[in-house]
Amino acid sequence: MAGRFGILDEEKVFKDPVHRYIHVRDELIWELIGTREFQRLRRVRQLGTTYLTFHGAEHTRFNHSLGVYEIMRRMIENMEKKEPLWDPEERLVCLSAALLHDIGHGPFSHSFEKVFHTDHEEWTREIILGDTEVNRVLSGMGADFPKKVADVIAKTYTNKLVVSLISSQIDADRMDYLLRDAFYTGVSYGQFDMERILRVMRPTEDQAVFKISGMHAVEDYIMSRYQMYWQVYFHPVTRSAEVILSKILHRAKELYEKGYEFQDKPKHFSSLFAGKMTLEDYLKLDESVILYYFQEWQEEKDPILQDLCCRFMDRRLFKYIECDPSVQMEIWPELNQLFTKIGLEPNYYLVIDSSSDLPYDFYRPGEEEERLPIHLLKPNGDLRELSRESDIVEAISGKKRTDHKLYFPKDLLEDKSKFAEEKQRILELLMAQEG
Amino acid sequence: MAGRFGILDEEKVFKDPVHRYIHVRDELIWELIGTREFQRLRRVRQLGTTYLTFHGAEHTRFNHSLGVYEIMRRMIENMEKKEPLWDPEERLVCLSAALLHDIGHGPFSHSFEKVFHTDHEEWTREIILGDTEVNRVLSGMGADFPKKVADVIAKTYTNKLVVSLISSQIDADRMDYLLRDAFYTGVSYGQFDMERILRVMRPTEDQAVFKISGMHAVEDYIMSRYQMYWQVYFHPVTRSAEVILSKILHRAKELYEKGYEFQDKPKHFSSLFAGKMTLEDYLKLDESVILYYFQEWQEEKDPILQDLCCRFMDRRLFKYIECDPSVQMEIWPELNQLFTKIGLEPNYYLVIDSSSDLPYDFYRPGEEEERLPIHLLKPNGDLRELSRESDIVEAISGKKRTDHKLYFPKDLLEDKSKFAEEKQRILELLMAQEG
Amino acid sequence: MAGRFGILDEEKVFKDPVHRYIHVRDELIWELIGTREFQRLRRVRQLGTTYLTFHGAEHTRFNHSLGVYEIMRRMIENMEKKEPLWDPEERLVCLSAALLHDIGHGPFSHSFEKVFHTDHEEWTREIILGDTEVNRVLSGMGADFPKKVADVIAKTYTNKLVVSLISSQIDADRMDYLLRDAFYTGVSYGQFDMERILRVMRPTEDQAVFKISGMHAVEDYIMSRYQMYWQVYFHPVTRSAEVILSKILHRAKELYEKGYEFQDKPKHFSSLFAGKMTLEDYLKLDESVILYYFQEWQEEKDPILQDLCCRFMDRRLFKYIECDPSVQMEIWPELNQLFTKIGLEPNYYLVIDSSSDLPYDFYRPGEEEERLPIHLLKPNGDLRELSRESDIVEAISGKKRTDHKLYFPKDLLEDKSKFAEEKQRILELLMAQEG
Amino acid sequence: MAGRFGILDEEKVFKDPVHRYIHVRDELIWELIGTREFQRLRRVRQLGTTYLTFHGAEHTRFNHSLGVYEIMRRMIENMEKKEPLWDPEERLVCLSAALLHDIGHGPFSHSFEKVFHTDHEEWTREIILGDTEVNRVLSGMGADFPKKVADVIAKTYTNKLVVSLISSQIDADRMDYLLRDAFYTGVSYGQFDMERILRVMRPTEDQAVFKISGMHAVEDYIMSRYQMYWQVYFHPVTRSAEVILSKILHRAKELYEKGYEFQDKPKHFSSLFAGKMTLEDYLKLDESVILYYFQEWQEEKDPILQDLCCRFMDRRLFKYIECDPSVQMEIWPELNQLFTKIGLEPNYYLVIDSSSDLPYDFYRPGEEEERLPIHLLKPNGDLRELSRESDIVEAISGKKRTDHKLYFPKDLLEDKSKFAEEKQRILELLMAQEG
Repeated sequence: MAGRFGILDEEKVFKDPVHRYIHVRDELIWELIGTREFQRLRRVRQLGTTYLTFHGAEHTRFNHSLGVYEIMRRMIENMEKKEPLWDPEERLVCLSAALLHDIGHGPFSHSFEKVFHTDHEEWTREIILGDTEVNRVLSGMGADFPKKVADVIAKTYTNKLVVSLISSQIDADRMDYLLRDAFYTGVSYGQFDMERILRVMRPTEDQAVFKISGMHAVEDYIMSRYQMYWQVYFHPVTRSAEVILSKILHRAKELYEKGYEFQDKPKHFSSLFAGKMTLEDYLKLDESVILYYFQEWQEEKDPILQDLCCRFMDRRLFKYIECDPSVQMEIWPELNQLFTKIGLEPNYYLVIDSSSDLPYDFYRPGEEEERLPIHLLKPNGDLRELSRESDIVEAISGKKRTDHKLYFPKDLLEDKSKFAEEKQRILELLMAQEG
Repeated sequence: MAGRFGILDEEKVFKDPVHRYIHVRDELIWELIGTREFQRLRRVRQLGTTYLTFHGAEHTRFNHSLGVYEIMRRMIENMEKKEPLWDPEERLVCLSAALLHDIGHGPFSHSFEKVFHTDHEEWTREIILGDTEVNRVLSGMGADFPKKVADVIAKTYTNKLVVSLISSQIDADRMDYLLRDAFYTGVSYGQFDMERILRVMRPTEDQAVFKISGMHAVEDYIMSRYQMYWQVYFHPVTRSAEVILSKILHRAKELYEKGYEFQDKPKHFSSLFAGKMTLEDYLKLDESVILYYFQEWQEEKDPILQDLCCRFMDRRLFKYIECDPSVQMEIWPELNQLFTKIGLEPNYYLVIDSSSDLPYDFYRPGEEEERLPIHLLKPNGDLRELSRESDIVEAISGKKRTDHKLYFPKDLLEDKSKFAEEKQRILELLMAQEG
Repeated sequence: MAGRFGILDEEKVFKDPVHRYIHVRDELIWELIGTREFQRLRRVRQLGTTYLTFHGAEHTRFNHSLGVYEIMRRMIENMEKKEPLWDPEERLVCLSAALLHDIGHGPFSHSFEKVFHTDHEEWTREIILGDTEVNRVLSGMGADFPKKVADVIAKTYTNKLVVSLISSQIDADRMDYLLRDAFYTGVSYGQFDMERILRVMRPTEDQAVFKISGMHAVEDYIMSRYQMYWQVYFHPVTRSAEVILSKILHRAKELYEKGYEFQDKPKHFSSLFAGKMTLEDYLKLDESVILYYFQEWQEEKDPILQDLCCRFMDRRLFKYIECDPSVQMEIWPELNQLFTKIGLEPNYYLVIDSSSDLPYDFYRPGEEEERLPIHLLKPNGDLRELSRESDIVEAISGKKRTDHKLYFPKDLLEDKSKFAEEKQRILELLMAQEG
Repeated sequence: MAGRFGILDEEKVFKDPVHRYIHVRDELIWELIGTREFQRLRRVRQLGTTYLTFHGAEHTRFNHSLGVYEIMRRMIENMEKKEPLWDPEERLVCLSAALLHDIGHGPFSHSFEKVFHTDHEEWTREIILGDTEVNRVLSGMGADFPKKVADVIAKTYTNKLVVSLISSQIDADRMDYLLRDAFYTGVSYGQFDMERILRVMRPTEDQAVFKISGMHAVEDYIMSRYQMYWQVYFHPVTRSAEVILSKILHRAKELYEKGYEFQDKPKHFSSLFAGKMTLEDYLKLDESVILYYFQEWQEEKDPILQDLCCRFMDRRLFKYIECDPSVQMEIWPELNQLFTKIGLEPNYYLVIDSSSDLPYDFYRPGEEEERLPIHLLKPNGDLRELSRESDIVEAISGKKRTDHKLYFPKDLLEDKSKFAEEKQRILELLMAQEG
């Protein structure tokens, strides 16, 4: 190892409500945590708009990133109980990648990326390889060290085992977010016995596998994941907030492109709207800044931008109905016409949102989203794919579940002081969908 | 009850990681939660800068306010098990006051109020009585209802029992914050058996008292409070962040007063700096806005403002030494001179912070901060003041503990490229203090 | 209500590690808990021999019975939030049945009943209706009250809703044992959100149904049940202890029938062995008495009884291999012969144990073990059977899983001082089975 | 190390509800757990009669002993993070002593030892040094190994650090029992941050000390201990059960000495009553055996033995009043006379029980019960005694608290069918005491 980094004189410890303590002994990790790019994650929430549904979920990506690092540290410690796994540099590549895997996330990434077609993985790469404090710290380990870390996160790294510990169907990232998000939302679904999973993990060339005696702990993890997706991540109220958030960003961009005069120039957004955002611009765009603008825009002249921002800030969200896409198509033209007639731009006030999740998948080579399956290790050394051993995992394996909802401002439709008839018709059309 | 409010068709339930569920059956409470002034509490952290020490503590006053309401709801439910306690309006006064007791809190109140001499209790009163959504909702209960709620929070309400449930040495507010702050920071100190305390509470005319059989649960609560103060609330790293925050606000105000030209006019601060902030201005000043400005000011020309903002945003805090005020006085003049000489304005870079706490007090009539003691109820109906029954409470009763620390930018002093000699002398003076 | 029972002056509270507190306000319940038949449950473990696998699981049926009562109390409280559910007597029938549903359980029931063909449900009925303290207390409510309670437990009671709260696929009994057994064993599998399940319960004529908004909590409960069965209840080590326990009881009975002279007459067993056990005899047979005899029998002359008792007391259990019944049949004759040859009675030392569980079932009228399915209540009032709404429940619905294991004293086979060749052959035959 | 023991091929893991997992890698430890003397601890409850007050507290000394071993294992692991602490044999001495420290405990030791003047520490020594499986396993490590283990437990071992880890004011034994007893009883008092305490432990020659930065965790531990003593261990209902238990043992001994003819000869007690109990006799006397006899004695002719046994088995305990010993002396003669008159032998039915606890003590050389104080380690290497740094520990330091209660069968006194006048007088005398 060429690097200048060593071991801290005194182990640093962070009190963490999920893992109790997070332990840092490597100077490299300690310095990475202190970089401004990493500290910025304190201003980006882990679960975006979920705090508007589960008020406890106000935790940030800073919080989660430390957790992923800690799980990785424990994974390595466990796998090294019998013999050293890697040389010291590989270990630090792995820990750094765990800590930094989310470093490129921007504010409310989910909606942000959909509207602006940016990609946090790209930004992650730039932060690690570009002119940043993170890069300077990593480079202290050797000139090619940052590239290695970036490759792990991009899943192109040569050591596939390292990649799998961070990105696979059972990795440090997922384990932390399930436990952490369950903790902060207060739901009981996200619990599983991580300690046992870590203890039955065994390294192979390509990925970590799990001793079959720990199968039920792995099953439990898959079930937790399934429950968290539908109970928390895809919660319809959260999606309503996401819909409004996207529409705000859309509207601001549209107005900007049309040459609309904002009361205060949205300077933090200019390069973004103009499609030429630099890394420096991006790093300034944290959630405080976004919320600052939303507050400002509550007083804009444009009624759509103004209304949507008030809705977001004061949590007056859209209501929804379940909608079957095929059936719903039939009423779509009429609904559109009616919305336009009553002065609600359908593009902003009549929104379909679809969520889908594939809780676990076995290996399907060549398919779009190829996933490495989870393997169990039998006492005789054979490997068995999880869904062949577990009835309940088999039951949900490869089954994508999709859910469609139609969001709209019910409050406005219930105000019958104007367009009473049209609004009545809209409500009838919508309610008929619900069946 | 003259009000128009009734009972919700379906009880509303919030998932809460501390109390599991928060239950709302009263339309009044439901509508209060939906007001924009209450939703704004989502943008004000419960523990100010503590998240820079305990990364889990990112929760907001919204979160805590729901918790205080829920404890109050349970207190009343418990005390009403045998017979109704009050008429329905009194109950709603009490629940509303619990929900709204922190509604006037601004961003990072602790430092904010010290620098600008504002008072969140004043703002609370204005929000409840002024032209706000909160006031409109409360007024629906009757013209004098908002005043009643404000009086409870101001402790001037006629029903002293109601006041004591919200503000006393053992009240809904404290119980929630101890449990909640312990949960989010991850420390184990804040635990106590709230369920038992609620069950042994008995109403008297002036205050709630506690059946003596529950004394140990009350003791445990007092001990939790003691530990949380010194372990969490007065943590030296948090105080370092507070010191920097105060100094940023100070500096911005000072610059404004001197006519300094900010790159962007800090319009959200103008009326505050000018000493004529309106309620509307105040309500816009949430923590996103503050952090927006701190980010902007990272690029200001003024080196002090710029440096302090970078420190706060990137968490490069001041270090500290313990300092005995008397001893420290001797070196003060020399230290000041040295700081000035090396170009560090002592006013901003050499800061004493003192914290003190009185964990529990018995009754001392006429004293500055008169506190109602906690009373235990004996089987024969007699009342006994807590510290007369409990050895450990007696031990800490009336004993104020104070702690002084001197904060300074150690990193700058360790950079010996300039003023090496002076910096060496400063470090020697400081280290000698620590003994 | 004809009865003499009322409300206690002061609510009695039991500290319970699972439900925090158990609340008793009815004199009837308080008196039932004080009866000698109920106190006897303190001497019967909840999970039989499981403590030999999970050392934490030392809890008794006393512990569990209080828990079932408490859940029932909360179920009724929840369902009565909107309107009274039943008249006061029905409520007490229900609570008494919950408290007493396991009152007839004897020591290590699982094995005990298989060996002696007794039935704890029969004994429950006798304790409730016979000459007991329990009966005297219940009769205080009216002459037909004991019969009502017994009928609820026997599932023959006219009010089917009451029956379903105690015995169905989601009832107070199962909810308590899953939570409690998970707590005491220390496994994480048994967790589910009982509070939410209770809140979405709605009474119908025949059974309680669950608002569809709570479906995921119900799903989680079904999954917990599934995991607990395979992870805890059917744990192979526990089954090994059960095998030995059964064989001890078998042997003692066999010896008794053959006229064997015990060193001390096993007077507590005489009437049982002779097939004429009275209720009084039965009530004396708690687990202390069983263990007393096992200790005594460690010194009996009969080598089989002596060896098995030593194994049980000192936890030197049998080992096992998985066995497919069909394959295994082929080697059975040879194995038997070999065991006999080396002096190990195959009847006692070569034992197949099969466990099977049906985690959830929809309704199959007319089938052997007819089970009432769980129904979800839609907002429009329709009911839907759970497995039609839940993918994961559907996946395991109606699927019985069975597992066969062959138990044997591996330690004796590994002692090659005698019959080395035969033992070698036995081990080869057994290991070949495992594949 | 001369011994034959090594490291297990595969680490053995016990699921433990308190420490999550207990890890065993040393063959020696694994074999010790398998001995019959250690397995016998499954039949001795950890908290004696406490289960009659806190129904959850049914856990045994087996459970606790594994926990103490696990804490010791973690203590060593923590202290060895920087450098090896001892040679491998010393480590195994230490772990064995932790595991076996309670091996000599008999059934309901508290009362048992008071009545029969036996001493579990003596028995521990005999089990370790005598003709037992435990001794055979230990001797495998070398001929003097058992003696070393026994010396650690007896506190006479040369390495004082090792002794202090098992027996001091903050040791593995106390840490486990506080956490474990809190867990099983369900009280919240016993919680403290053990992980932090272990992390700040530092070995010195004589004892482990604690980095001052962890002082509050140590404070919290002392407070937990204080609360557990008064809330759980000295609970007045538990003491009532202990009183009855002692009196049963007394009576049986007295009857035996008088030549009373028991219906069945109490053969397990004969050598004990005769004062010549062997180790083999002692090891047979577990709690099942005791309860077996108590059940038998429920039908003895002697009315005192019979009544007391029924009381114990059916939990019909004595009631109590607080009693000040001096005041109470005045009424003692009259009470005695009255009890005798109404046929209640005062020796058995009128019992004073005193409990006292010294929660923490600083060093008082030469005093009866000399205790090593807890020391804090300052950054500069100095040691400070805990009570000099901690206000709350100082407050309770050296203060012995004693509590006296008078127990009697209130139920019999309330039956006024006979001796109504005398009973009335007794009740008056007693109630007057309570004030």
